[in-house]
Amino acid sequence: MLNFQYYMPTRIIFGPGTLDQLGDTPYLPRGGKAMIVIGESGVMVRQGYLSRVQSLLSKQDVQTIVFDKIKPNPESDAVDEAAAICRDKGVDFVVGLGGGSTIDSAKAIATMAANKGKYWDYMQSGSGGGQEPENDALPIVAIPTTAGTGTEADPWTVITKSGTDSFEKIGWGNDATFPALSIVDPELMRSVPPKQTAYTGMDAFFHATEAYLATCRQPASDMLALEAVHLIAHTLPQAVAEGDNLEARTIMAWACTAAGLCESYSSCISQHSMEHALSAFHPDLPHGAGLVLLSKAYFGFLAANGEERLGDLALAMGDTLEESLDEEVSGVAFLDALDKLITDIGLADEKLSDYGVTREEIPMLAENALTTMGALFDITPVSMSMEDVIAIFEAAYE
Amino acid sequence: MLNFQYYMPTRIIFGPGTLDQLGDTPYLPRGGKAMIVIGESGVMVRQGYLSRVQSLLSKQDVQTIVFDKIKPNPESDAVDEAAAICRDKGVDFVVGLGGGSTIDSAKAIATMAANKGKYWDYMQSGSGGGQEPENDALPIVAIPTTAGTGTEADPWTVITKSGTDSFEKIGWGNDATFPALSIVDPELMRSVPPKQTAYTGMDAFFHATEAYLATCRQPASDMLALEAVHLIAHTLPQAVAEGDNLEARTIMAWACTAAGLCESYSSCISQHSMEHALSAFHPDLPHGAGLVLLSKAYFGFLAANGEERLGDLALAMGDTLEESLDEEVSGVAFLDALDKLITDIGLADEKLSDYGVTREEIPMLAENALTTMGALFDITPVSMSMEDVIAIFEAAYE
Ligand SMILES: [Fe+2]
Ligand SMILES: [Fe+2]
Repeated sequence: MLNFQYYMPTRIIFGPGTLDQLGDTPYLPRGGKAMIVIGESGVMVRQGYLSRVQSLLSKQDVQTIVFDKIKPNPESDAVDEAAAICRDKGVDFVVGLGGGSTIDSAKAIATMAANKGKYWDYMQSGSGGGQEPENDALPIVAIPTTAGTGTEADPWTVITKSGTDSFEKIGWGNDATFPALSIVDPELMRSVPPKQTAYTGMDAFFHATEAYLATCRQPASDMLALEAVHLIAHTLPQAVAEGDNLEARTIMAWACTAAGLCESYSSCISQHSMEHALSAFHPDLPHGAGLVLLSKAYFGFLAANGEERLGDLALAMGDTLEESLDEEVSGVAFLDALDKLITDIGLADEKLSDYGVTREEIPMLAENALTTMGALFDITPVSMSMEDVIAIFEAAYE
Repeated sequence: MLNFQYYMPTRIIFGPGTLDQLGDTPYLPRGGKAMIVIGESGVMVRQGYLSRVQSLLSKQDVQTIVFDKIKPNPESDAVDEAAAICRDKGVDFVVGLGGGSTIDSAKAIATMAANKGKYWDYMQSGSGGGQEPENDALPIVAIPTTAGTGTEADPWTVITKSGTDSFEKIGWGNDATFPALSIVDPELMRSVPPKQTAYTGMDAFFHATEAYLATCRQPASDMLALEAVHLIAHTLPQAVAEGDNLEARTIMAWACTAAGLCESYSSCISQHSMEHALSAFHPDLPHGAGLVLLSKAYFGFLAANGEERLGDLALAMGDTLEESLDEEVSGVAFLDALDKLITDIGLADEKLSDYGVTREEIPMLAENALTTMGALFDITPVSMSMEDVIAIFEAAYE
């Protein structure tokens, strides 16, 4: 019988041009001092987004401190460093401006700005300290400039442990790490290059597909997931090919936010555990690329084990209206549609070895996936042994 | 271009048997003293729901005060009286237990427990004082025992002004009147009698249909509205006929909560303004009955003015999968499906005159609808003059 919890307290302001509302929205967190968290690449500075956000915040009498040391796979040392600055300067709220890595970092920084110790003390798996934060995070404002992670609509932050002795990339979050305010302005996404558009769009695609399959799903996440899968399958190729197309960017932005909502109402499943293992060991592997490279093997395993809901996803990706697909063809139909989408966005020729992944690492990767993010295996609709996880990595490697 | 705000911060715990979670959920608002608001009919006492809620709250060390003077169309004097008790006794949060009227009252009481003056000082239309509350409402817990208003998933409270000189039934709410916690347990709804099941179910049906048509709609409200319309059309007749059927009650409970979410992400339109006029003058007219009695004339007017989205609603009510309906038939298809639904739930023979409505009142009712809840006309997809509103009332009266 239907049983679920529905909770997503973030206020999302969505639409082209909505960034300007940052200058007068009554929903900005209180306080006169904010930290703006951006990536180390300098893109936010070159695009002029940083100065725009600074001047909009100054209209609301908010002084800003910029922390600009976030890597594409953000690390825990940077979180701890930025949090110390927040405590030192009396920062009132934290703004994440950029891709998922900066917004995720903003969530982690906001947590540590209000708590003692190191970020890793609070991780619940791997070498984490297993502590619970005593205080709520500072309020968080999310301003995504890519359409991908959906972190603007969920409480999750994915951070990699600094240092080379241990490879751990762990998702964490609590009720205080939902952003208080997210401004999703597709105008800001027009400058994302084609490859990154493809990677981040596919990250969202897998958030939706995984949330649709997760055993903790609910009716609202099912609807949002099918909407996101439908829109991404039909629009991502265009957003990749015509980056400046505001309509395509707007559809993708909504699809990715919808997929982010799925992360709050439902959850990712073990494909994400497996990808986190890959990109923890290979920080140059973009998260979305890692997912794409795993996906045919991963969903092939689910299809081979009779996961019927793949048929719904196949229908959402297609152009025709049908009541349902036969059980026997539903998995194949999804794999065919996935293959076509990956080809249409220009990612068909990528290989895990392009990113330095070796076959020898596979047992270690499987072990890592099961230990650092093992909880997602519990809500995966098909149970997976260590051997199964190894076999999926092997199949993805070929 | 797509532009919207997404915000609904209530935590909803949904499912048969979830009421028991009230005894140990960590999400109960803080504080040791709660007011439980129930209706004057005594149903909550006779069903044992009141004592169950009291003992569950006592497990969480919460003392309770019961306020049991809420009428089916709740009035502002009762709100002011209960709020004075809250202030006097130092109540920390307010629990609404029962139908929409008690939960709406809990929201209004929680607001006035934290603010000066009278409730009507804060109404923004009619004879309201137009003030803004200085303080946030006390936290609100909603425990609906009917599937109807959706008030567990929106900030709105509908209260009628006490006294006979002025007939005003006005919706109001702000960010602080979203419940902090809503527990939607379909087990509690099995004892609702058939007629009331039909009325409240149709209230939810119109929340969904109106939210789907409102010009302030967004993708999430569209999905939830079509889901609710589909489920209600296919399940309400069964819930009316077999009140004890837990599966039907569970589907209806989710449909009504989904329709309530539509009230947060989108809005009702002017049919609700018109119904509020009717039941303000005729407090014995159940809100859902008033909507049903207006609906054929109201949606007939929209159909005659070419509202094409009625076709989507007709498809959601039907059994076949089709891409879309022709423009010319979409309105007719919806009206036919509506007519069938009203017949299937046993309400085909009701008339406005059964509830004491007279033809002579119609101009006054139209004036009341446009003045006390005029804002909903601004988001209705077809513009309506005073003459149009009178004509719709006239058509509904025949
Ligand atoms: Fe992801
Ligand atoms: Fe209603």
